[in-house]
Amino acid sequence: MFSGISAVSRTRIVSWSDPAAAAAQAQTMSGLEALLAMIEGRISAPPIIELLGIKMLTAEPGRVTMGLQIGEHLYNPIGSVHGGVAATLLDSVMGCAVHSSLPIGRIYSTLEIKISYLRPMTQALGMITAEGNVISLGRKADFAEGRITGPDGKIYATGSTTCAVWDL
Amino acid sequence: MFSGISAVSRTRIVSWSDPAAAAAQAQTMSGLEALLAMIEGRISAPPIIELLGIKMLTAEPGRVTMGLQIGEHLYNPIGSVHGGVAATLLDSVMGCAVHSSLPIGRIYSTLEIKISYLRPMTQALGMITAEGNVISLGRKADFAEGRITGPDGKIYATGSTTCAVWDL
Amino acid sequence: MFSGISAVSRTRIVSWSDPAAAAAQAQTMSGLEALLAMIEGRISAPPIIELLGIKMLTAEPGRVTMGLQIGEHLYNPIGSVHGGVAATLLDSVMGCAVHSSLPIGRIYSTLEIKISYLRPMTQALGMITAEGNVISLGRKADFAEGRITGPDGKIYATGSTTCAVWDL
Amino acid sequence: MFSGISAVSRTRIVSWSDPAAAAAQAQTMSGLEALLAMIEGRISAPPIIELLGIKMLTAEPGRVTMGLQIGEHLYNPIGSVHGGVAATLLDSVMGCAVHSSLPIGRIYSTLEIKISYLRPMTQALGMITAEGNVISLGRKADFAEGRITGPDGKIYATGSTTCAVWDL
Repeated sequence: MFSGISAVSRTRIVSWSDPAAAAAQAQTMSGLEALLAMIEGRISAPPIIELLGIKMLTAEPGRVTMGLQIGEHLYNPIGSVHGGVAATLLDSVMGCAVHSSLPIGRIYSTLEIKISYLRPMTQALGMITAEGNVISLGRKADFAEGRITGPDGKIYATGSTTCAVWDL
Repeated sequence: MFSGISAVSRTRIVSWSDPAAAAAQAQTMSGLEALLAMIEGRISAPPIIELLGIKMLTAEPGRVTMGLQIGEHLYNPIGSVHGGVAATLLDSVMGCAVHSSLPIGRIYSTLEIKISYLRPMTQALGMITAEGNVISLGRKADFAEGRITGPDGKIYATGSTTCAVWDL
Repeated sequence: MFSGISAVSRTRIVSWSDPAAAAAQAQTMSGLEALLAMIEGRISAPPIIELLGIKMLTAEPGRVTMGLQIGEHLYNPIGSVHGGVAATLLDSVMGCAVHSSLPIGRIYSTLEIKISYLRPMTQALGMITAEGNVISLGRKADFAEGRITGPDGKIYATGSTTCAVWDL
Repeated sequence: MFSGISAVSRTRIVSWSDPAAAAAQAQTMSGLEALLAMIEGRISAPPIIELLGIKMLTAEPGRVTMGLQIGEHLYNPIGSVHGGVAATLLDSVMGCAVHSSLPIGRIYSTLEIKISYLRPMTQALGMITAEGNVISLGRKADFAEGRITGPDGKIYATGSTTCAVWDL
């Protein structure tokens, strides 16, 4: 149905594993253990991550990094990467930074995110890197921040989040 | 490990048209004309929209609606729809609400979004609807708000955005 | 250079009652009862409200309104009302809208606010009105929105907030 | 009318100079020069700053710090410092950080702020310090972040802002 280089590059085939199985596995681990298991491929990455092409890179307590190769599949109708991509990437690193701080049996849920778009992102950028850092851990809420950096060292987007946390 | 129907449902094949061509077409129209052309299929939808499965529904001056069938491909690692999905959907309806207010030759760029997650979204929800509304049009910045509603009439997420606007 | 009435108008004398006493009184009431007691003067308004000149106007379940006469004492260094004033007013109506929804023994604490500045506010505006509305009540978090309207019917600022809620 | 130590501490008398005069003076200077003139007392601080008791401490290109002695006049009705105080302080340091980056003739206006409340603030805290830092300077918008730190070294609140910038 599609032929030629151009057409081939405009189809994306994405496969994923049962996210419920991965979620069940993760619940038997601390947040950090679950994230390391995903990085090492012992737990499958969630579908949305496969869909966009996000790669989990590193996880340590309170800090997570991920990478994303900018492709045309991420474009908006006005000629650059859709704002939802930076939001998804930053929500991921910020939420996982919170997750990386939680022991077994402690749960989080994102209450809100704010994303600031400092510079437009295009395919010319290549690979971008996002890092999420916990700012404060509380009894009812954790706070984290994130930023996306290009291979040029410039910051392309920043984010902040509030997550509810509680014990199962 | 996976076979049959279940495995088939865990692959997603997405195709799209050249987004630069669509962007060039859109620049010859007012924002509202470009959005109506997308809804009617005369301009192809942007890749990210196809990737998630977002459907553009309606556009009028200052107001845009879109729909999304919740599927497993949108899941996060903790058993519900990833926060980036609501962010992408709300960024789309809010940005397009601003776009729908702009004459030919006037351009917008999203400076920031905030997304609030009121309730978790799962596949049981089926189809969600998002609407974006312009709150204020200015010389240098436009402001819009958005919300995602389920078939149960409940609000699942809300958003607000600031867009820079200028004449080419 | 300044003399007489003009100079007098550049001093503001503010008095308030013990906020701990008011807080203790309020804890014996539902949120709505406490707010109505403040509006009717049976509980003293908090100091910050007196400091800026905010007037509590109405309270009903999930909705609160307040007024503020714009004065020079609220000005920033660039010739208009300081952004902190709209933030304080919106934080007040949004937090009180959440408070108005809580029974005795249920407590709230503001996790975050976002404030959008749609138009500059100056003394020429006279009296502004703010309303706060609850958008969603949850087990762990409540969400509210607010807006400031001028006597001209235009919206000058909008806000959104996330509040943690719990039982004592 | 008021007597005794307690009563005396519950009245606050605030005076300020014509903010229009200060604004006019500031327009003949770069942002950094205007901020340094305020710190050194050559331009009068804006009324809202006097009202709350904020002290401007330092200004350098892209970075501003201010201090605030927590007093009862800043309290909310639920026994701690009102969220509007942190918002005003963070809006001030973030806006001034942007201002400190602007040459003569270049103007800014705050489009939005987000404030996160990490920990409650009470009088026991004493003096808090806020710093604002520019994250990105653009042609149409500048972005800055801020945080409030206590004498214990803990972060009590964080903020982010988007400011429109343009040439007169």
